This record gives sequence, structure tokens and C-alpha cells, in this order.
Amino acid sequence: MLLNAHAVALCLAASLSAVSGQTFQRLGTCPDLGCVIPPDQQDFLPGQEFDIRFEIHAPKNGSEAFNNGVPDDKFSATIAKDGGKARSIAEFFKLSEPALEKWTFSWFEDLFARDAKTPSVVNVASKAYRRVALYAPGTYTVTLSYYSGKTTTAEWTVRPLATKKKAKNVIFFIGDGMTTNMITAARLLAHKTVNGRYQSHLALDDFPVVGHQMTHSIDSFITDSANSATALYSGHKSSVNALGVYADSSPDPLDDPKFETIVELLHRIWGSAWGAVSTAFIADATPAALTAHSRLRSTYGVLVDQALNGVQNYSWTGTGGPDVYFGTGAEQFLAGPGSYQGKDYYAEFAKKGYSVSLNKTSLAAAPNDKRALGIFCKSNLPVWLDRNVFTDNMASAKNDPSGADGPAKDLPGLKDMTLKAIDVLHKRGGKNGFFLMSEAASIDKQMHALDYDRALGDLLELDDTVRATMKKLEELGILDDTLVVVSADHGHGFDVFGSSDTKYFAAQTDDRAKREAIGVYQNSGLSQYTTPKPGVSYGTGANFPLNWDPRYVIAGGQGANPDHREQYGVGHKPREPAKVGANGEAYVNNEDRPNGFVVNGTLPTGDTQGVHSLTDVPVYARGPCQEAFGGTYSNIDVFFKMAGCLGLGWGKNVTEGAGGADGPGCHPKRATVELP
Amino acid sequence: MLLNAHAVALCLAASLSAVSGQTFQRLGTCPDLGCVIPPDQQDFLPGQEFDIRFEIHAPKNGSEAFNNGVPDDKFSATIAKDGGKARSIAEFFKLSEPALEKWTFSWFEDLFARDAKTPSVVNVASKAYRRVALYAPGTYTVTLSYYSGKTTTAEWTVRPLATKKKAKNVIFFIGDGMTTNMITAARLLAHKTVNGRYQSHLALDDFPVVGHQMTHSIDSFITDSANSATALYSGHKSSVNALGVYADSSPDPLDDPKFETIVELLHRIWGSAWGAVSTAFIADATPAALTAHSRLRSTYGVLVDQALNGVQNYSWTGTGGPDVYFGTGAEQFLAGPGSYQGKDYYAEFAKKGYSVSLNKTSLAAAPNDKRALGIFCKSNLPVWLDRNVFTDNMASAKNDPSGADGPAKDLPGLKDMTLKAIDVLHKRGGKNGFFLMSEAASIDKQMHALDYDRALGDLLELDDTVRATMKKLEELGILDDTLVVVSADHGHGFDVFGSSDTKYFAAQTDDRAKREAIGVYQNSGLSQYTTPKPGVSYGTGANFPLNWDPRYVIAGGQGANPDHREQYGVGHKPREPAKVGANGEAYVNNEDRPNGFVVNGTLPTGDTQGVHSLTDVPVYARGPCQEAFGGTYSNIDVFFKMAGCLGLGWGKNVTEGAGGADGPGCHPKRATVELP
Repeated sequence: MLLNAHAVALCLAASLSAVSGQTFQRLGTCPDLGCVIPPDQQDFLPGQEFDIRFEIHAPKNGSEAFNNGVPDDKFSATIAKDGGKARSIAEFFKLSEPALEKWTFSWFEDLFARDAKTPSVVNVASKAYRRVALYAPGTYTVTLSYYSGKTTTAEWTVRPLATKKKAKNVIFFIGDGMTTNMITAARLLAHKTVNGRYQSHLALDDFPVVGHQMTHSIDSFITDSANSATALYSGHKSSVNALGVYADSSPDPLDDPKFETIVELLHRIWGSAWGAVSTAFIADATPAALTAHSRLRSTYGVLVDQALNGVQNYSWTGTGGPDVYFGTGAEQFLAGPGSYQGKDYYAEFAKKGYSVSLNKTSLAAAPNDKRALGIFCKSNLPVWLDRNVFTDNMASAKNDPSGADGPAKDLPGLKDMTLKAIDVLHKRGGKNGFFLMSEAASIDKQMHALDYDRALGDLLELDDTVRATMKKLEELGILDDTLVVVSADHGHGFDVFGSSDTKYFAAQTDDRAKREAIGVYQNSGLSQYTTPKPGVSYGTGANFPLNWDPRYVIAGGQGANPDHREQYGVGHKPREPAKVGANGEAYVNNEDRPNGFVVNGTLPTGDTQGVHSLTDVPVYARGPCQEAFGGTYSNIDVFFKMAGCLGLGWGKNVTEGAGGADGPGCHPKRATVELP
Repeated sequence: MLLNAHAVALCLAASLSAVSGQTFQRLGTCPDLGCVIPPDQQDFLPGQEFDIRFEIHAPKNGSEAFNNGVPDDKFSATIAKDGGKARSIAEFFKLSEPALEKWTFSWFEDLFARDAKTPSVVNVASKAYRRVALYAPGTYTVTLSYYSGKTTTAEWTVRPLATKKKAKNVIFFIGDGMTTNMITAARLLAHKTVNGRYQSHLALDDFPVVGHQMTHSIDSFITDSANSATALYSGHKSSVNALGVYADSSPDPLDDPKFETIVELLHRIWGSAWGAVSTAFIADATPAALTAHSRLRSTYGVLVDQALNGVQNYSWTGTGGPDVYFGTGAEQFLAGPGSYQGKDYYAEFAKKGYSVSLNKTSLAAAPNDKRALGIFCKSNLPVWLDRNVFTDNMASAKNDPSGADGPAKDLPGLKDMTLKAIDVLHKRGGKNGFFLMSEAASIDKQMHALDYDRALGDLLELDDTVRATMKKLEELGILDDTLVVVSADHGHGFDVFGSSDTKYFAAQTDDRAKREAIGVYQNSGLSQYTTPKPGVSYGTGANFPLNWDPRYVIAGGQGANPDHREQYGVGHKPREPAKVGANGEAYVNNEDRPNGFVVNGTLPTGDTQGVHSLTDVPVYARGPCQEAFGGTYSNIDVFFKMAGCLGLGWGKNVTEGAGGADGPGCHPKRATVELP
């Protein structure tokens, strides 16, 4: 069955090779004209709820033109378990047949078609079967039949049951965009070597288990943070910009087929507490993916509402809202154009019993037994380096979270937010435990800006937070009950390749002569960031550089760049490497690193920033189930490993609010419902 | 004691901060004017033999000028264990006092001094204590006293005893310059995904344990392959270009203080067989470091002689010569200017009982019970991609290993060499087992040339070799007795960031327009290297790309570059990105990737190649002791983990050739000698 499915797919793919979807795709998960979503070769946790969509495509023009652009609306679909009897989807899931939907979309077959402005137009007939689940582990074959004889098959695997909760708590740290290369560089900045031996280490260096996860999307080998977070939280890879859904081709970003996330499962099955902490605006992809079900990560207002109230346009499993929600992005909370339906989401959260903190002082004072919202500024949190070293950069910001003019003040950092989150979650989770996701978001954001030092500063803040978290867990007596996982969602192709003598660099007036300041191999020397400099003291503690601005600095970079200047050494101002000119193209920003030499870029000339890269990213694990995280695996396996450790794979429907106390754990409202 | 030593070092370092050795160093391991080598904070295996050198520096001029340039030749040194009584070095090790040595060297304090041609000149007084060992685990403090009151201290740690052999055999694969980023890219080229799931995997992906090792040198944060191989094989970090020695400041590259390597230990203690396989010339750093003791990796002829005959200028532990030595670099074997003393090393090896193979056919026919030399061409082995796909590139080579004109023919690959090596080593090692180092050298060499595809081809060849090795070990019934470790010695900052539409790229005539061909994020699409192309078949097997030259190729690069052109896609000719012009500076090579766009470099303008990078590199382990290789550690720990697993840490002198059969293992000539 598997081989047949592939043979069909390969055969069609070959015939369509001229348009096989590389730069642009008709629909990434659909190589032929009938689409099964979830597509072939997807994995499910037993009992994980999800939607199914079928689409029949009728391209009106272009190299795939078919049936005069009329999609077959008499398609049918069946499902069979382990080669058994095929039953119709509606019968199998005991649903009534959904309504037929129709729409049209267009795409470009390649860049030549884009330049010629000749889109290919596709008419679609579709049906969606909402909120189903597969309970029995095994292999399911879904067959879509259309155009009188064509078929598309998909094989779905339901993984083994996992009903035992081995970790009471899980804390999942995400260094957004963080790679092994960056971790190595951060260690070099903050920790001193003597004759080749580090005198201190990163907290990450002390983790007993290391693994690697592959980050690629379902339909492209480079991912964004939305669909990689989706994979990490749900076990389903998706497409760039998609959160908690498989992408369909419909125009509505909120009707795409959903699947249940780890916090939805955890809430439904164990009634545990859960929280999200981020240095990004909280509607950004990585925190939002815990609760979001949207094709477009930019539907920010909706995402905040989904976090609080769950999915509103369909009946769906939910979380009852986070117990902790700490981050930034006041734009989505202040009543106005940035918030959902213009509502005041500070008030919406408060109505549901949340304490609301807008600064570090009120965060510290928030009661631990109450659900807690903390939104500390507009946009993203200023980075660690600006909060702690180049503090002048914050004075001119207009990011007060209350909507007042002027800068946000009394800002917490990732460590403050995370430790408070643990206090609240530990209290509120009680016997049911908790799940916390804590994100160092600006490792990614600053790597996009090629601001290596600001990125590494935030990486060190993450490491410092991990260290403090271990101590906190020990103090609370829950270190051994808590699985701590630290990983990333994707990389940037950054690495350090030497040092630069800033004094010599500055003394040269010619771009090529400046490059002579760079020392490679033996001339790279040792880190001077750990050498005390008289008069320089930031008070940032043992796990950070003593001097961010030494004469000899790291020289690093990446292969994916816009036009930019390289000067090396910390920028006292945040970086903006390229600017878009009047012709819509990006060029070197002459105000950024003005004494640097120009490097022409490798990216499309509209891009002003660096981009994500392919590399597998590291996974560090400590605590119950840590041994499961060694070796190399897909990002979806991070979900399955965590979900397995949390006992979230049940062979029966564990239903919220069904009354009784006979469900797993001690959630008072939980009951299991036996299925046929 | 530790703190005091650091305080002294820090204090002196601060006072010398203007010249603290970054781009250039007086002597990397010597921050003050008295040098203890091995320096502070070095680790030793119990019983591991090594040399000690003391140097007193008297700078004649420059910012460190001292004592009118007259070095104190009345210096003295003591050693004390665990804070106990200090004894003179000669007394402690029962040696007579060595002769005083004197020399002069010079260095530049920084790039300004280099430009001004104003070197600092240093006169040196020195003594070397040769071939000592520390047997008892613990901490030893060495104190050098000089200039009537100055002291330099060094703390040495002897690690715990390890006398039990837990793995009969160890196979250590080194992908030179290989990073996680490259492994990810290689997987993408050779293995197909369907909707986000890989249909097959790298052999590396199946290893149960992953770790990360830090690669930095003892005195610079970027390493070369010489000193990183030294660290991996001996547990001692060293300086760029150094093999099996700590660098001293003397002019003679063959008098620097040595330390025993893993194959010297293994031969001495267990009488095991050992071998080296490489796709580099066999005198290159990574294979040579197993037996070499030289400050200069470029002393190639000497290194081959050291491999066969051991160190000749001092009494030293040896290996009796390799049981297997397979690689290239006929220049060092053919009688002539490239060989040691102009001798014919094919004949020298033959005299000592080696079979000598110069091609794949004779390699296969070589007897397994005899020691085996195989040298298959001059220079490095042509890369996998040229041997298997672009075979025309080999026709014009003048690399016949016999010295005849014309190209080498009937070349083996890494897999052929490695599998044959296992046959010989298994046979010859018998009950005593074996150690094999097998290196994929051109991952590094081709990354230097920015030839990403050729590098990844050789990475895939390594992976294919690892897969075949596992099968071979199983066939021989020794899979469970054999620790297999796959790692690297350092990285290059390469990563993939998207795809390039080669058709669109070629159709653009302007450098900026060509960049529009690059697809990032969702526009990267999926690998087309795994899609069959009619008429294209290389016959290279399941673990390699089906098509190296698809329309949509990977776009990747690194931050460290000479001026070069980027065209993306496989080059049918090997790459030479930059050329040195008449003024001694490197510029874009107009013949390389002639249709690409120009990217100006970030490296010093004399450099024609990419350089090594900082990143920690992955370690994959499988077999006895595999669990020791998880987490994050130094490259020296790879040695200690392997040596511990092989039972190479003895608290008494296990002496070769002492007669009797009471030693460990069953080596007939082995005896242990109790020490006081």
C-alpha cells in the first residue's frame, strides 16, 4: 500500500516536473490534483483531535490545465485501518456529510511566470470533516477518488499509546533561531579559557543528553518559526506561516484543517496548568503556536483571542486559557486597530480572572495562585544588551505597554518572567503539574539583523535563565519531577571564523585594507571579552562578558546576507544592515556600521535581512525521559517524546467537562469515554 | 593553589594587556616570562609519557623589554602532588639534570608592528626533561622560579585509572571540517522527503548517542587540523600547526615537548593492531597526528618516517609502525625531494614487511595477515564527485602514485580502503583488538575551496562508509565489541539558506538580478536532487543523489570568504574561487563559476580560500562506552573517553619489550614495572 501510494505520487510528480513546485507551489502537500489533508505519511498521537480536508483541483490554464477548469465535486473518500475494510470518512468517524465548498486561487509556476505576470488559476471543490480523532495505534490508509478513476492516497500512522505520566512538569525552552554555532560563540564571549580549558561553562554544557532535530517544513526545506513551532508542539509539520493547521488552498486563513497541540492535550487529559513566556510580542509565532489555529501567523489579534478563548469559528478542543502569559506586544492588547475586534485585551484577560502586570515590579507582586498576564512593552522586548549595557537605546522608544507616550520602563528580562511563571504554574498546577514554554525570541530577530552581538547576548540570557530555572526547580523540590528541554526551531547560518583588531581596522581607510585586521587560525587568539577592563563593569553577573567592547573582537557572519557593511565588534546602536531604496530594492544602509567595509549580498535584492537556514538544531534534555532525546530525529519527534513523557496518548476519548472523577489524573471534570 | 596560580596569571596578563597576544603571540601558553610546558591546567592519562620544557624569556625590546635581554639561566623548578612536598623535577622523575639550551626568537606585538617591520626580540634560556610520566591520579603543581623571585605555576591533573578494556576495537571516523550544518545539507541531497518525512536516512542519523565537542586550540579559538587531531588522539590541546607536541619557542620544529598518543599507548599497553585511512595525503595532519611529534605539520617527509620508525632524535615510546596505512601523497614515498632523506619509502615499508598497494585491485588482493601500505596517487585523493560523476576531471591529472607520467587509475574510495583496513586489522589484532582512524579529508579541503557540492559528496561517501562498516563489523561478528565514533576536528561556517533556480539565474545578465533566482523559506521548496531525471544515472547507489544537477539547487555559503563568484549548483570542474594577482592580493577568479555574481570577501585579501570556524562539532557514538559520548565536552575528552574505554590508563609503567607474559592483555613481550 505504501509503495503504491508512492508510485502514484512519483508518477504524477514526474509528469508535472516542469511545475513541480519549487519556488512556488500549487499546494505544497498536494503533488496531484486531488489533495488529502493531512497528507500522506503523517503521524498522530492516539486520540489527538484533528480536521480532515479534501480538495479537488481543476487548473484552468498553465501546464496542468485540466477538465476545462471544472473540479470534480462528486469525489469520495474512504479510510481503512491496517489494510482492513475501507469505510467512508463520514461513516468511520460517525459524522454527517459536510457541505461542499468551492473557491478559486492562483499561483505562479515559476519566476518567469511571475515576471510575465501569467498566473495559473485553479478552481477547487472541497469538503472538510471537523474534529475527529484516531484512537487505535496503527496505519490508516485514506483514499480519495475523483475525476472518475484518479485516486490520491495518504497513509497515516497513529503512534503507540502513552498513558503514563512520567514527568509531572515539562519546561520547554526555545532559543529561536539558535544553533550549535551560536552556542559555541556565546560560550566564547562569556566564559574564560586558560590554556584551552574553560574555567566555567554554559548551563547548556551541563545537560547530560544532546540530540539533533531536523527543522524542515512539510513542503520546503527552510522553515519559518510558525510551522516549526507547530511541529514541536503538535507533531505535525506544516507550511511557512501556518500555526496549528495544515495549509489548504482556501482564501480564509481560519478554516484550514487543525490539529490538537500539546497544551490542548494536556489541559484535556490531565487538567495541568500551562504557560508561555517570550521576549517576543506574545502573538508572535513561537508562543502563539501553542494555541493558534491559523494559516497566517500575521493574524495577530485573532491569535491572542484564540489563546484566551480558544477557536471560535468551529467547535474545538481548547485550553481554557493560559495560566501564565508573559511577553510583549501591547499592540494586540490595547483597544484599537491591533487588537481583535478592537477590544481591550487587558480587560478581556482581567474579566477571566487574570492578574495583569505591565512592568517588572507588578510582575513580582502578582499573586501566584491566580492566572497571570504580563505584557511589558509594545513590539518585542528590548534585547538583553540594550537593557543591560547600552541602556541609552531604550530611552527614545515609544513602547509603553499602557499606551502612554514614551518608553516602557521597569522591564523584566527572560529570567524574571520565567522564574515567576514557574512560581505561578507550580502553585496552580498542583498535583496535575504544568507545562511551560519559554522563548528567547531575539536570538532569531537579531540574527535577522546580522546583529551577532545582540543575538548572542540574548542567547546568554537564555542560558542564564536555564541555570536559574534549575536552581528554582531544586528549591521548589521538583527538579527530579521536571523534564527540561532546551532547543530551537531553526537556525541561521552564522559562525565565527576569527577575530578582528578593531584598532587596526579603524586605522585603515580602504575596504580591502580593513580586511587585514581579521585574524584567522592562530591569529584569532583568545577571547578578550572575558578579560576585565579597568573602569568597565556592567554588573551583569558571572555568566556574561566582562567587556563587550574589547580591542580584539570576534569576526563572524553568515552566507545569507543583504548588502551590508561589516565592521565587527558590538554596535552601540541596534543594527539595520540594509534599507529599501526608492526603486524597492534593498541597499547598504550607510548609517549602519559606517566604518565597516561593504559586503554585497547573496539574497534577493528586496531583502533587508538575513534568513533562516537548513541546519539541524540541538536538543538538550534533563530530567524524566531525558534518554529519549539523544540521537537525530525530526522536530515532530520532540512533540512525540514530550507527549509520551506526559502520558498524552490515549486509546479512548478523554473528554473535558464530562463530569465524574474517573478520568486520568485528578482533574475533577475529566472523564474517559469508550469509543466503538 | 588553583586560585593562586590563576591570580598570578591574571595579574601578569593584565599588566601585559597591550601585547597580550591576540593576532600574534610571544608564546601562546606563556603569559609571563617564565614558561612551564605542559602549561597550567593540562590533563594526563595515568602513565601517559610526555616531555617537560621550561623557558625563561628575556625580551630585548618592545613593551615587555626586561633585564637587558638576558634570560635567567639559574631558574629552578619543582613538582608537588596534591599539595604535598615539592621536589625538584630531576629528583621526582629520577633524571639527571639536562643541559641548558639557549636561543633567540622574534615576534610582532600587533599588526601595526608588523606593518612597521619592528619585531620584538626575545632571548631564551631553557631546559627539557624528556620522557617522563605521572602514574598516580591527582593534582600536581609545578613551580618554576626565575629572575630572583618570579614564579610561574602550572597545575596538572592526572585523570583516574582506567585499566579495563571495555571495547576490543575502536573505529574513529573523522569527517575533517564536518559540521552539523553540512550533515543536514548532505541528508537533503541524498535522501528524499515525502510531506516532511525522510524516506531514508544517513547512517549517522541512526547513531544512538550524540555529543558536541569544543575544538579550540590551546592558544587560539580557531583551530587547524593538526592541533585538533592532536587533542583528539592524545588529550592535549596544542597550537596551530603542531602535531603531538606542545609548541615551544625554539627554532627546531622537532625538539618540542612531546606526549604519547592513543596508538602509542595502545601498542605499548595492549599490543593491539592499529591503522590509518585517509582520503588526504597520508602525511597530512589528521592521519599524521597519530604518530607525529613535530611543531610543523609541513615536515611531511619526517612525519612518514615517524609513522614507520617512530621518533628518531629522542628515546620515545613508539608504535612499531602501523598495521594499515592507506591514503595518498606519493610525493612522500617516491625517492626524491618530497621524501625523508630522499629515500624510497615504498621500499622502506616493504623492508619492514608491508604489502604495498598502489591501486584498488592490488589493495583488494593484499594479504590480510600482513602489514599493509596503500598509496593510491599523489596529493589528495580525487573527490568522490570527480571519481564517480565528473570523471573527466581525473583524466588530465598527473598523479600516478608510481611516479609515472599521467593520471592515477583504478582508485579506491574511502569505503574500499576502510573495509580492507578492517579485514587486515581484525586479522592482525587478533585477541588484542585494533584501533582504526578513517578520515574523510576533503570535506574540509573542498569547503576551503567553497566547493560545497564536492564537500557534501565526500561527506556522503563518509556516511556510506560508516554504513558499510557497521555491516562489515556485523559480518565479522565484532559489532558489539567495537566502539564506533564519528566526529570532526573543526568546522567551516557553511549552511544552506535556500534554493536557486538555475534556469532563471542563467537567464539574468545582471549580478543583482541573478540574486532574484534564490528562493528562501517557502520558496526554497524541496530537494530535487532525489528526483530521478530521465537519462541521468550515476550508479552510485541508494545513499547518494539521483541527480546532482537539477534545475533547482541548494543555495548556501559561509560568512568567511575570499572574493569569489556564487553561481550555486554543482560545478562540473573543481572550484578555485580566487586567484592571487601580481600585487600578491587575491581577487575573484574569473574562470570559476563564470556566470555567477561577484561577492566580495570578508577575509584578509591575501587569502584565496575559506577558513575554519569556531563551532562545536558533533560526536556520534555506538558500541561499548557509547553512553560516555553524550553531552558537551572538550575535544581532549574524546581522547579520554576512548582511552578509558580501551583501558589505557595504568598506575604503573607498562613497558614494551621487557620480556615475560605478565602484562595486561596477551602481548608476549609486555611486562609491567612497578614504580616507587
